[in-house]
Amino acid sequence: MRTVEWANGVVRMIDQKALPWEFKTVDLPDYQSVAAAIQDMTVRGAPAIGASAAFGMAIAAQNSPAKTVDGLMSDLQQAAGILKAARPTAVNLAWGVDRMMGCAQSQPYSSPDELRQTLLDEAQRIADEDVEINRAMGANGAVLIQDGITVLHHCNTGALATVDYGTALGVIRAAFEQGKKFHVLLDETRPRLQGARLSAWEMEQLGQSYDIIPDTAAGYYMRKGEVKLILVGADRVAANGDFANKIGTYQVAIMAKEHDIPFYTVSPASTIDFNLPDGDHIPIEERGKDEVLTPYGNPLTPPHFHARNPAFDVTPHRYLSGIITERGIARPPFSESLKRVVAGEQV
Amino acid sequence: MRTVEWANGVVRMIDQKALPWEFKTVDLPDYQSVAAAIQDMTVRGAPAIGASAAFGMAIAAQNSPAKTVDGLMSDLQQAAGILKAARPTAVNLAWGVDRMMGCAQSQPYSSPDELRQTLLDEAQRIADEDVEINRAMGANGAVLIQDGITVLHHCNTGALATVDYGTALGVIRAAFEQGKKFHVLLDETRPRLQGARLSAWEMEQLGQSYDIIPDTAAGYYMRKGEVKLILVGADRVAANGDFANKIGTYQVAIMAKEHDIPFYTVSPASTIDFNLPDGDHIPIEERGKDEVLTPYGNPLTPPHFHARNPAFDVTPHRYLSGIITERGIARPPFSESLKRVVAGEQV
Repeated sequence: MRTVEWANGVVRMIDQKALPWEFKTVDLPDYQSVAAAIQDMTVRGAPAIGASAAFGMAIAAQNSPAKTVDGLMSDLQQAAGILKAARPTAVNLAWGVDRMMGCAQSQPYSSPDELRQTLLDEAQRIADEDVEINRAMGANGAVLIQDGITVLHHCNTGALATVDYGTALGVIRAAFEQGKKFHVLLDETRPRLQGARLSAWEMEQLGQSYDIIPDTAAGYYMRKGEVKLILVGADRVAANGDFANKIGTYQVAIMAKEHDIPFYTVSPASTIDFNLPDGDHIPIEERGKDEVLTPYGNPLTPPHFHARNPAFDVTPHRYLSGIITERGIARPPFSESLKRVVAGEQV
Repeated sequence: MRTVEWANGVVRMIDQKALPWEFKTVDLPDYQSVAAAIQDMTVRGAPAIGASAAFGMAIAAQNSPAKTVDGLMSDLQQAAGILKAARPTAVNLAWGVDRMMGCAQSQPYSSPDELRQTLLDEAQRIADEDVEINRAMGANGAVLIQDGITVLHHCNTGALATVDYGTALGVIRAAFEQGKKFHVLLDETRPRLQGARLSAWEMEQLGQSYDIIPDTAAGYYMRKGEVKLILVGADRVAANGDFANKIGTYQVAIMAKEHDIPFYTVSPASTIDFNLPDGDHIPIEERGKDEVLTPYGNPLTPPHFHARNPAFDVTPHRYLSGIITERGIARPPFSESLKRVVAGEQV
């Protein structure tokens, strides 16, 4: 099934907090619970958050008691504000909400029900497009994977981080489906362990050869010469190619440069925020210390110990070999190549 | 109490696997259980391992039923082999055993009991010297800590990693005792979490301001400009200044260079292995995957998931600002300055 989908009047999601132990879904009956599921990371991954926000807007429209188009628009504005506030860093959240609002404002509707149906269709379209886009990125990126190499990956960027298929892990999946034989090292990605819990689970499903490594061991394997390619996702890409991604991405990028290893982010055009000149303007979410000290209810230290927990970091574009998009691989200078991607051109 | 000490005919150790939850000790009645405690990391930290090995030799002598000096020497040779094989990377283990064997061979003994007593005295001397050496390193290093700065630290190098006081955390302790006000960021240090469990516990005991951070966040705080000094320990320093230390040290070193932050290892002369020309000759221990997947009995993933677990990495000397020893701070070129340290000169 898809990470997020519409199911008989509710938004149905895979509960990512239950993996890798249990594959189960949750049914969310209103936009408030969609916002809560984004906030508590029942759903995570920038593209999956974008689609979830779109379905959140669709269910807000369905549930609104408004009897006029204007009344419904007013309810949608409120839902848009709540959904956008759920998490600050990934631009796909605002992108999904804004696309839904743009759709609502794009033409006059004769009835609230017509608008409701149009929004539900638009959310479905966003979800379908996400899968298509991921397959295109997979094909564009898979050329970088040669037989026999080892690829290093950070966090989770697979089917679970998107509606389906994946971004950086989508590239790995495409290469796997092409019959290439290679190995993947998965950074476990503290504090939330998306690499160890979600990416490893996806590699198990796929049958792809992999090893989880502690985040501390990435440099060790680079220095040994084992790592030939590094693939990560992105939560927001600025106009100059700087990008925010899961905490720890920045240091992987520094190590890639030090060892002269190609380092790519795999990011759909929807992740590019062309309004931001550079990465220093991307807001970084700081989450609670319990995620560090007591991951998934397993206490690693007493709860009164002090800890900090920034959820993302920003990698300056100078560390990037390229940005794999659905329109090809954008290369430096990114201010030029990303402009073409955003304009819908192939690069 | 000390991390390891002689107590009425047994070797008594703080059980570091029980911290930070419980402060308890274990009494080890023979050298085989001392070797097992080193192997399973009941005791860890290069200097603490060195002293434990010395007490292991002392208890081997006490327990030997030999009635002649030659018979006792033969039993000591056997114990030396078992103790040295417990862990491969830290040179202090071999150093402690070799110093005890050297003491046994340094003069003719008139009776096995005279040799037994001499060896017990020597182990006590090694332990006492370790504390003295740590205090000297603390004083030598504390000059680097200015009021108001933030110091980043990796793994545990405190009183628990030594007989008492600590190496890199000993420098922090010395600055704290001098009344300096500063902050410490503790890398949690996956997979065994020595930073989160042991170093944080020591900072709590001391009353020093600190925050645990996931290993993935070190680069984030360096880029923000918060980190002004980085202190780590060492398990073995080669003649050219390359050094092995806890996995993740190498990448912290790379990041230090990238951000132009002073990066020091704090290492007593006993950690310098002048027989090794460079770090590529240091053996790196690979431990079981359960430490990654199920730290301290907390399962983070299903047990059949694949993982790798290298326990140490090697940092080339070009990343090092200096090596803080009991004889001063050795500076590049290390092949010169370390030669003087090993010869007993001040640097």
